[in-house]
Amino acid sequence: MSAGWFRRRFLPGEPLPAPRPPGPRASPVPYRRPRFLRGSSSSPGAADASRRPDSRPVRSPARGRTLPWNAGYAEIINAEKSEFNEDQAACGKLCIRRCEFGAEEEWLTLCPEEFLTGHYWALFDGHGGPAAAILAANTLHSCLRRQLEAVVEGLVATRPPMHLNGRCICPSDPQFVEEKGIRAEDLVIGALESAFQECDEVIGRELEASGQVGGCTALVAVSLQGKLYVANAGDSRAILVRRDEIRPLSFEFTPETERQRIQQLVASPPQAFVYPELLAGEFTRLEFPRRLKGDDLGQKVLFRDHHMSGWSYKRVEKSDLKYPLIHGQGRQARLLGTLAVSRGLGDHQLRVLDTNIQLKPFLLSVPQVTVLDVGQLELQEDDVVVMATDGLWDVLSNEQVAWLVRSFLPGNQEDPHRFLKLAQMLIHSTQGKEDSPTEEGQVSYDDVSVFVIPLHSQGQESSGR
Amino acid sequence: MSAGWFRRRFLPGEPLPAPRPPGPRASPVPYRRPRFLRGSSSSPGAADASRRPDSRPVRSPARGRTLPWNAGYAEIINAEKSEFNEDQAACGKLCIRRCEFGAEEEWLTLCPEEFLTGHYWALFDGHGGPAAAILAANTLHSCLRRQLEAVVEGLVATRPPMHLNGRCICPSDPQFVEEKGIRAEDLVIGALESAFQECDEVIGRELEASGQVGGCTALVAVSLQGKLYVANAGDSRAILVRRDEIRPLSFEFTPETERQRIQQLVASPPQAFVYPELLAGEFTRLEFPRRLKGDDLGQKVLFRDHHMSGWSYKRVEKSDLKYPLIHGQGRQARLLGTLAVSRGLGDHQLRVLDTNIQLKPFLLSVPQVTVLDVGQLELQEDDVVVMATDGLWDVLSNEQVAWLVRSFLPGNQEDPHRFLKLAQMLIHSTQGKEDSPTEEGQVSYDDVSVFVIPLHSQGQESSGR
Repeated sequence: MSAGWFRRRFLPGEPLPAPRPPGPRASPVPYRRPRFLRGSSSSPGAADASRRPDSRPVRSPARGRTLPWNAGYAEIINAEKSEFNEDQAACGKLCIRRCEFGAEEEWLTLCPEEFLTGHYWALFDGHGGPAAAILAANTLHSCLRRQLEAVVEGLVATRPPMHLNGRCICPSDPQFVEEKGIRAEDLVIGALESAFQECDEVIGRELEASGQVGGCTALVAVSLQGKLYVANAGDSRAILVRRDEIRPLSFEFTPETERQRIQQLVASPPQAFVYPELLAGEFTRLEFPRRLKGDDLGQKVLFRDHHMSGWSYKRVEKSDLKYPLIHGQGRQARLLGTLAVSRGLGDHQLRVLDTNIQLKPFLLSVPQVTVLDVGQLELQEDDVVVMATDGLWDVLSNEQVAWLVRSFLPGNQEDPHRFLKLAQMLIHSTQGKEDSPTEEGQVSYDDVSVFVIPLHSQGQESSGR
Repeated sequence: MSAGWFRRRFLPGEPLPAPRPPGPRASPVPYRRPRFLRGSSSSPGAADASRRPDSRPVRSPARGRTLPWNAGYAEIINAEKSEFNEDQAACGKLCIRRCEFGAEEEWLTLCPEEFLTGHYWALFDGHGGPAAAILAANTLHSCLRRQLEAVVEGLVATRPPMHLNGRCICPSDPQFVEEKGIRAEDLVIGALESAFQECDEVIGRELEASGQVGGCTALVAVSLQGKLYVANAGDSRAILVRRDEIRPLSFEFTPETERQRIQQLVASPPQAFVYPELLAGEFTRLEFPRRLKGDDLGQKVLFRDHHMSGWSYKRVEKSDLKYPLIHGQGRQARLLGTLAVSRGLGDHQLRVLDTNIQLKPFLLSVPQVTVLDVGQLELQEDDVVVMATDGLWDVLSNEQVAWLVRSFLPGNQEDPHRFLKLAQMLIHSTQGKEDSPTEEGQVSYDDVSVFVIPLHSQGQESSGR
């Protein structure tokens, strides 16, 4: 979604609400390298996240950049087309300490006493400037570590106990937990969900305090105890590529994929108990195949409302001529004429241009989490997870990416940098370089960031304690 | 869900809110045979739905009953255990007339001028008395026919036109429809969704006018133009059984499967813009493995909130000891201690016992619709769809039902009543009769209703015009 502000296109001649441009309030925070393996003892909150300018991002376009704290098992390339890079990334070890029950909670960034070790990869695709994406890259892993440390006793039990101290108030407590089917992996899913929410709150406070604006998508992969968790809020994507399998590990959240949830929010009684006033009378909740015009008045046209996954016809009234809540198709689809994603972090101040209509009530910061049981796969050397921002997927299909992976890896098994080179090749394929499998002339003008994560090493390393 | 009022069980010793019992206001409406093939010219609304008592239902338990208007291609058995049967059903031809654009809409129940012919099967499982189920059985097909007639021009076009009169206001209108991927089947889905909503409104008005109460689930199958549409609101189920395939055609909507939607409705700002006041301070929105007690105060226990599909721990506060919004497990799960389903028709007056807390704001009348492209299947003689109320599925799994289907049909191909007998056998299997594949002692005390729909005849007949 980076450079998303350049991607917005509308039908010619239409009067459009447009996003509030970054303007003077959108001066980006200085770039900072992620901190969580640097041995400082700062708190995980982002209260100081924008205070220590370290360095500007490497700007050489499309050059492979191994992050300094990269443990070598994953690579990232950033096409870096924005003035300040709207794509941001973070990866590293997740060091989870054991907290004795009742002990005062305190958070260290060193991991000498680590109890569980995981690995963390994250892509953040900013819009309206890089501020939110930088904050997220500096903050989310800390929120996650804190959430995981708060439940670590449950993580290592055969089944999470009803009470964190392991006591049974009611003799059948273990049975209740079993009947609900609660497993350790549900605690990791819950930790990811809560961490995203917490990070969103931190970003909101930080942006407000520093007078900045912006938002970002977030795609996170965590390898822990033999499983890979993929949490997604936005339109980045992760897929598993094996010799004979392509498996989506995430689902995109856009105004189109979340249409019913978004329309529902502004439905009127008696259909629903919700908030039509969020539209301030400026937009219509209904979806039509195109924006309606005066000539359509009185005609019966195709439409759908929040309760419909199908379509029907309605007679066009004057209020149907308003600008649609969700408008456009595919990459051009926008929420309130402004935003191309329906989940993510930040955007607390975002308003429709020249109005007081807020976007935030329509946005969710909660990710959808999928779990890949790596321990159950018969892993091959060349099994990888490819995570990338939408710049890649706009141009390459899952099948095309898999084809590139399968063409490249088997012939380069001795090359220690092959995953880096594969990531580079994927980027170049979006830019008309290399021997690209994209359709004629398909080039991405968006930022593109890619992680290629070899699962073979994860299967061996990541469940260590 | 019939006899659902007898199925409610709670943990011993817990003080429970309970449903408002049927009482004197719940006297059921007289049973009426469905009307839509009887040649009357009454309107499709249910304004007169409860005024013409025809006959009491056949009460002989578990006896096969071929409905008088049954065209012979499907059978139903009703175990009929309630005083007034809470399971109701309807099936028959759907005769869709062509309405010239601009003509005054009027509705006939005869079909001499039919333009499209479909087939319709519906199961309604009532609770709080049979009133809503009877109204639904008498009304929903009329609502559906009316919705389909309103879009019939779009149904028979290669692709539905943007404007129902086929004119193009904007030259690229067909392109907009194509880009949205709108097909004729989306109009049938939309018609089903709107028909359920309309029927729910009719039932609400009827029940209020006649001083009755109650609600029902609804499972509808429609065969039209070579496709089978299955629309479900509630906990009935339809599956496709073929020689080498079992395919679920519906998904159950219960307080458990719709937990996040229901919790979300009563989330508090700033998490969400919704209605905590619907709980009147009597319930807690949070889910715990069991209901909490005083001894749990101050402990950290497993919980989850509306934004979580995973679990986490929280320290128990006094407000967490309230009765849970959704409580119980599996068949015992209840919304507000009252209702076992989260979608359906009716229940407009339903309140939690001894409170003014309404259930209706938490319920959806909208079905989920799945489409089976019968024309694309290589149909075998013994391919069937089994539709049944929850009384069957509480005792038999999809696999057990498929086993019974596959054991019975191949050896009885000459028997013209074999689908009836199969439906009978399925019912008997839930009652410990026959050679039941259920687990030891598994018997259903609920009403059970079953349709067995042979697809082979549908493939040949149902797309006729």
